[in-house]
Amino acid sequence: MTELLANHVAGRWQQGTGPGTVLTDPVLGTALVRVDATGLDLAEAFAFARHTAAPALRAMTYRERAALLAAVAQRLQAHRDSYYEIATANSGTVRNDSAVDIDGAIFTLGQYARWGEALGDVRVLRDGDAASLAREAAFVSQHVQVPRHGVALCINAFNFPAWGLWEKAAPALLSGVPVIVKPATATAWLTQRMVRDVVDAGLLPAGALSVIAGSSAGLMDALQPLDVVTFTGSAETAALIRSHPAVAQRSVRANIEADSLNAALLMPGEVQGSDAFGLLVREVVREMTAKSGQKCTAIRRVLVPQALYGAVADAVAAQLAQVSVGNPRSEGVRMGSLASRAQLQSVHDGIAALGACTELLHDGRLQPLVDADPQVAACIGPVLLGARDADAAAAVHDVEVFGPVATLVPYRDLDHALALAHRGQGSLVTSLYGSDDAAVAGAALSLAASQGRVHVVTPAVAKAHTGHGNVMPMSQHGGPGRAGGGAELGGLRALDFYHQRSAIQASPAVVASLGL
Amino acid sequence: MTELLANHVAGRWQQGTGPGTVLTDPVLGTALVRVDATGLDLAEAFAFARHTAAPALRAMTYRERAALLAAVAQRLQAHRDSYYEIATANSGTVRNDSAVDIDGAIFTLGQYARWGEALGDVRVLRDGDAASLAREAAFVSQHVQVPRHGVALCINAFNFPAWGLWEKAAPALLSGVPVIVKPATATAWLTQRMVRDVVDAGLLPAGALSVIAGSSAGLMDALQPLDVVTFTGSAETAALIRSHPAVAQRSVRANIEADSLNAALLMPGEVQGSDAFGLLVREVVREMTAKSGQKCTAIRRVLVPQALYGAVADAVAAQLAQVSVGNPRSEGVRMGSLASRAQLQSVHDGIAALGACTELLHDGRLQPLVDADPQVAACIGPVLLGARDADAAAAVHDVEVFGPVATLVPYRDLDHALALAHRGQGSLVTSLYGSDDAAVAGAALSLAASQGRVHVVTPAVAKAHTGHGNVMPMSQHGGPGRAGGGAELGGLRALDFYHQRSAIQASPAVVASLGL
Repeated sequence: MTELLANHVAGRWQQGTGPGTVLTDPVLGTALVRVDATGLDLAEAFAFARHTAAPALRAMTYRERAALLAAVAQRLQAHRDSYYEIATANSGTVRNDSAVDIDGAIFTLGQYARWGEALGDVRVLRDGDAASLAREAAFVSQHVQVPRHGVALCINAFNFPAWGLWEKAAPALLSGVPVIVKPATATAWLTQRMVRDVVDAGLLPAGALSVIAGSSAGLMDALQPLDVVTFTGSAETAALIRSHPAVAQRSVRANIEADSLNAALLMPGEVQGSDAFGLLVREVVREMTAKSGQKCTAIRRVLVPQALYGAVADAVAAQLAQVSVGNPRSEGVRMGSLASRAQLQSVHDGIAALGACTELLHDGRLQPLVDADPQVAACIGPVLLGARDADAAAAVHDVEVFGPVATLVPYRDLDHALALAHRGQGSLVTSLYGSDDAAVAGAALSLAASQGRVHVVTPAVAKAHTGHGNVMPMSQHGGPGRAGGGAELGGLRALDFYHQRSAIQASPAVVASLGL
Repeated sequence: MTELLANHVAGRWQQGTGPGTVLTDPVLGTALVRVDATGLDLAEAFAFARHTAAPALRAMTYRERAALLAAVAQRLQAHRDSYYEIATANSGTVRNDSAVDIDGAIFTLGQYARWGEALGDVRVLRDGDAASLAREAAFVSQHVQVPRHGVALCINAFNFPAWGLWEKAAPALLSGVPVIVKPATATAWLTQRMVRDVVDAGLLPAGALSVIAGSSAGLMDALQPLDVVTFTGSAETAALIRSHPAVAQRSVRANIEADSLNAALLMPGEVQGSDAFGLLVREVVREMTAKSGQKCTAIRRVLVPQALYGAVADAVAAQLAQVSVGNPRSEGVRMGSLASRAQLQSVHDGIAALGACTELLHDGRLQPLVDADPQVAACIGPVLLGARDADAAAAVHDVEVFGPVATLVPYRDLDHALALAHRGQGSLVTSLYGSDDAAVAGAALSLAASQGRVHVVTPAVAKAHTGHGNVMPMSQHGGPGRAGGGAELGGLRALDFYHQRSAIQASPAVVASLGL
């Protein structure tokens, strides 16, 4: 039997009492470890975080909690190699893809440590200036932000076991709110290991960071009115969370980041071979293949002037043909596997669902795998589809295939292109490729209403831009509608979710005594 | 038959096709008007607002939309007398109480007109400064706020037919988002009349302001992902809204303001007859009787040092005994009626529910009514209860009696008092009464985590303070947990709800072209 990973709740390591679920290597098909949450006393777990860890965190200042984050980042850095090993084994990712998750997590922690230190030795955040409520400002209103008196339940997705943990835990802990993370079962190992390393080093107050790997049964039931829940994953599960009595009846604050139909848009007026043309092609290929397309921010729709449909198709297909797929341990393999055979099946199903309204422009499904058995490995080569009739291809704007799959969509003019982008009903990100600064700026503002982020690639930033799908902690992550309506990161904006804003109405003398 | 009020949707006045629901005078029991929404084409109504009115609003600048609000305020001011007449007839409120609703609405509109003008002739709001994403800031992230491309469905409560409309419509319209208001049926007349006056004056783009009076059936079904819904009312209905597919599945943004167990807290160390003691007594009496206690912000729990339990009880009871109750048209009547006989029954039920853990300190239930028939009028005198065992009296911290009823709760020390306040599980407001600036400031910060607002009354602001229960547009309105987790007003903070924040990542040159 493989090792049964322990959960950490109520300040101690506790193994589940059931047989557990086996985590497997998605390339080799071998069993790795088991996880199980059977028999945990969840009421005790949440109460311990809420009543023991939270007051300990709140007793510290922002600067002191920022120092905790710096120590966590340092600890993770020291164990970085072991995380890469787990990622290779459990996620089937090549080194560059593991880096997005692991180094992305450490980078994000470091940023919040830096921003938190700048907040200084205070325990309350000032929110704007005092507003007068009476003549001569004899009575005023001063808004403040104070840490929520609750815990943060973080229910994470399988594709970012490292970053998904820390991009949420960093602002939560900095805010003085303990974290209980429930990683997706398939890739829970890396999350559990990172928590283990941090907890065992004694870096955080007892109960400030808990991990529950296995079933999520009962977790939502444990939430109280001042707690918060964050969820990254499918729209279906998101609906269950929003409808749960914790959210629907007890007003537990929920932040949802769901899948979306992100787009890349080559601006009108660009010609074959222009800088912007080349930048779009490069980015589409990168986004389709990075983490085998298993990023919620990945490009799913490629909007191009209809005159360039064929040229873009050829250019992308030519580069996709160069992408070697297979065992991430093998030299020269550029794209590893999907997270599981279940995901592989889901990608095949998705391609089939898009089949009725698209044509195949590049089909990597039958390409030979490097050092991997196609009967065992969750590997698939990239697939580029094309929807010549963009308006009629409803599925293209609605069905997200969570793998190395994108659809080329021709548009007539900019208005048509923007309308097609908006047909995603709210997305995490759209990227623009063009060489006219004023034109891309205007398009960016038009798109902003349905996008959490607009990424603009002009020739001037060919090398400096951070990538369509990379989530930088300085920028908001999360979009409206289909994307879940959430908002994470965005620098210190992320702290809002873990704070309660309150308006203190008082005399100027009392407001002065608040010590803001 | 009484007049059947028309609905205004899809840019035209439309009567329902059913018999309608009769609105009555809660003092005299007479029929006033009817409302009905049967047979309205809601799909057309929402589509017209979304696709015709919204683009017209968004084409204007913030300053231009602010001018609309100023014109609306002016129009309402011109018709103010007729609104007072409707309030007297349909809400049974005395003039001072009608003013809280009507003049409060006009004041709030005026504030947003002023704040909106200061935003200037722009169509996008800058959100913070650009953050560097690359060396030498060659690539940066600039957050913006843009109007949501949707409509605002505002489902309002019966107690504020005027203010409830405009405190939401003002920030929505200023944000470029059309409003569809669904007033509570019992008091829908005033809302409908105000909309009629504004629409018929042609002040707003067609479809920018709609009113649907009658059943709410089908309204939530009409919402699309980029729409928003605001609700003020019971926690039970709030749960239905949050669980509706529009919110749970389509990520429609929802703002909920539910009932709560607001508290007033006399600080430790105060003695009988001190300034703070007197200020608390006055405010408790005012809050219990204003609008017959039908304010979501009204004081429900009065926390006092246990040594002062008897003294506060006597002082409050003595003032309550002076409150005349009855027909608001009669000279000298200080407190009118509740909104309906159904509300009267609900108040009686609430008092009974608190009976098991409280004693009666003042019972106005049997006091003679002035010029009103107790068999007909929805009138009730004020009732002060007392819970000598504050910790054991669970119902006192959980059951909100929406009428002129409050419970006196003795505490041992400040920690105990704060813990009792927090037992409301999230409230709209708690007020503090004390004479030590540093002490009240500290208590205010301790309370902030469970309060949308903390109102601090010290002797210095005896005359200047704006009242525990009065919602000033400068301050946030809305609290966590039990209070619904929403946030309204707070000056320009209210605009956030009607905007989408987006991070635009681009070269500094492109960001400069955004014209922020």
